[in-house]
Amino acid sequence: MTDPQPTTTTWVDGAAGSLYDVDNLPYAVVATGDEPARIGVRIGEHVLDLGAAARALRPEWTPLLAVPRLNELMAAGATTWAEVRAWAVELLTDATRRDEVEAWLLPLADVTCRLPFEVADYVDYYASEHHATNVGRIFRPDGAALLPNWKHLPVGYHGRAGSIVVSGTPVHRPAGQRKAPTEDAPTYGPSRRLDIEAELGFVVGRSVPLGQRVGTGEFAETVFGVTGVNDWSARDIQAWEYVPLGPNLAKSFATSISAWVTPLAALEPARVPLPGQDDVPVLPYLAEDGPSGYDIEVEVELNGTVVARPPYRSMYWSPAQMLAHLTVNGASLRVGDFYASGTISGPEKDQRGSFLELSWGGQEPFAVGDAERTFLEDGDEVVLRYTAPGARGRIGLGEVRGKILPTS
Amino acid sequence: MTDPQPTTTTWVDGAAGSLYDVDNLPYAVVATGDEPARIGVRIGEHVLDLGAAARALRPEWTPLLAVPRLNELMAAGATTWAEVRAWAVELLTDATRRDEVEAWLLPLADVTCRLPFEVADYVDYYASEHHATNVGRIFRPDGAALLPNWKHLPVGYHGRAGSIVVSGTPVHRPAGQRKAPTEDAPTYGPSRRLDIEAELGFVVGRSVPLGQRVGTGEFAETVFGVTGVNDWSARDIQAWEYVPLGPNLAKSFATSISAWVTPLAALEPARVPLPGQDDVPVLPYLAEDGPSGYDIEVEVELNGTVVARPPYRSMYWSPAQMLAHLTVNGASLRVGDFYASGTISGPEKDQRGSFLELSWGGQEPFAVGDAERTFLEDGDEVVLRYTAPGARGRIGLGEVRGKILPTS
Repeated sequence: MTDPQPTTTTWVDGAAGSLYDVDNLPYAVVATGDEPARIGVRIGEHVLDLGAAARALRPEWTPLLAVPRLNELMAAGATTWAEVRAWAVELLTDATRRDEVEAWLLPLADVTCRLPFEVADYVDYYASEHHATNVGRIFRPDGAALLPNWKHLPVGYHGRAGSIVVSGTPVHRPAGQRKAPTEDAPTYGPSRRLDIEAELGFVVGRSVPLGQRVGTGEFAETVFGVTGVNDWSARDIQAWEYVPLGPNLAKSFATSISAWVTPLAALEPARVPLPGQDDVPVLPYLAEDGPSGYDIEVEVELNGTVVARPPYRSMYWSPAQMLAHLTVNGASLRVGDFYASGTISGPEKDQRGSFLELSWGGQEPFAVGDAERTFLEDGDEVVLRYTAPGARGRIGLGEVRGKILPTS
Repeated sequence: MTDPQPTTTTWVDGAAGSLYDVDNLPYAVVATGDEPARIGVRIGEHVLDLGAAARALRPEWTPLLAVPRLNELMAAGATTWAEVRAWAVELLTDATRRDEVEAWLLPLADVTCRLPFEVADYVDYYASEHHATNVGRIFRPDGAALLPNWKHLPVGYHGRAGSIVVSGTPVHRPAGQRKAPTEDAPTYGPSRRLDIEAELGFVVGRSVPLGQRVGTGEFAETVFGVTGVNDWSARDIQAWEYVPLGPNLAKSFATSISAWVTPLAALEPARVPLPGQDDVPVLPYLAEDGPSGYDIEVEVELNGTVVARPPYRSMYWSPAQMLAHLTVNGASLRVGDFYASGTISGPEKDQRGSFLELSWGGQEPFAVGDAERTFLEDGDEVVLRYTAPGARGRIGLGEVRGKILPTS
């Protein structure tokens, strides 16, 4: 699968040189008025309606594109992914077809984005060494920051697929059992330590039966694209429930993802080597050739103020390693499987991707404009924004937006 | 929703007085020859083809019954569940209609059963006090057997929905990272401590949006029915991976469920009080009225020898409590959500539902006919069988069968 690497310029006004130029073209499921939702690609401040374009020009792709989820396109396989992408580039760069294609161009402001794919299983990893170290120091100040398994395998767990929501969906503060160390017994009520986790997500576009393995080298034919993820977390519920079977209700109330799924092809120029796995060699099934990290910058904005800039290039485990680990036991894959990186935190204080870390367990409130925060308050709005180097300049991966509503 | 409580006798030869009399009528998705799979109910050694019967007699139910999964019937709601059940009883007890209905009766031996429903999310609990205590003693011999949260909330985690398979599907021994306490570093290879977990599963037949809660009193309108579950577990992979985020690859390679889903109505006579939650009072959202346990007997058979008989009536947490806990944070429910009880173990040694417990961590091999076992060997076949008191005598909930194949 090679990127079309367009050498021509788009005719779409304002798109050339923007974060959404023709080297990007992320996918979403868009709806307008009463028309059924279908697939579109973003170009500048517009969306090319691929459903409508397919009906007119490529009827064989109508079942993949004039449908309200990416699953059918993903299931068609990596060759089709490349063909559809090349076709979209052609439509958006051939100035002689402008009049024809413009009919399928929708102003971004006129579309509503839906959840871009039907989620099969959701696995959340814990792939940032800086994040895992910070969490270890906060929760186990007297013990080793990293647990013994951490550098041998990408630690992960299954999350709740059914509560994954698209960017913009408001999030009710979860209630549940919380017990502070100073309390004798748990009480029931709204979480008092509601947090974000700025992550990156990977959408599987391929089915693999039970009993097989997917190697690190199969990443590009298996993963269709990338989303932003905010894995909302109730730290007080988590602290009380998570031993010994891991987080459950602390996370299962909502996970927000970007409306836009950026194809791997658009991210080829963002490939960078991992920071290094030299001190603890990985087992052969996790070995990789070439640069397998991504130089994606994340911006965490709270109520209009940027409070952190986590760098994805600092992640310890690569997405291809997470994929290989996920299936090494023979677990099957389905189209729509989704896995996330875990909180992205860099080495610097202002690169931490959770309030738990930014406020060091709630002990060090941090400034948000004129206000201070430790954890989220009702009415707070969080926006995660993602950009990366593209073939021509920086590209945008969209945003993950969510506002906290009181417990319902 | 009341059980039809039939006072008449079925005309199906051999069914009256069997484990599958008209007070039972579990559902499955059945296929015969080249015909599309559809829904049937078991009666004695036959299956009543509800898809064919609906086409002829109740065309409005064709979209619920002449389809290869229970999800549509479940989504129709509890009133329809009761109506379909009453209709099946009528067809199978009205001797004047025998000639007409016999055309839709398939010998059990002629049908193949598929996975009975499309699984949305899968949550596995840890609801047996005897099991949790045994595991605590085996893994933490010097610590408290039960962790502090255990009697306050039903501890659970999300499992992999995509690797749930129907009874009879062979299971490849998983491979992965294992590290014995005596080893310095993990190695990669087939699990050396492959185990079973005899459980009961609960199938959700109702959608509930994000931000709501489902109370314990809504159990009967929310849960469609019950399955047997074997939650295969690789103990060596689990021991190395599970801190701090819980089990992942140790479980995600396969979970087997019975082909038959027994409606809650058939299990009304099996209701029994829980053993008791008096020493640690539960929070109000977990409170219940009336008997909320089930007197279901499980038989664990290995290579033709019964090795344990775990009693479901000994479970600490009720299925209604597990449901209320699952949604107390505002998590949504989807039709096809599935949750399991965790290993069923009773107080006696021969009532333990895992080999981990039967062999006490592998230290005390147990007899299996002329052989001995600690964990599963390639070629072993495990059958879990479930029965309960019904309205007329004992009823069968089907079996969960699986044979271990070598690592693929």
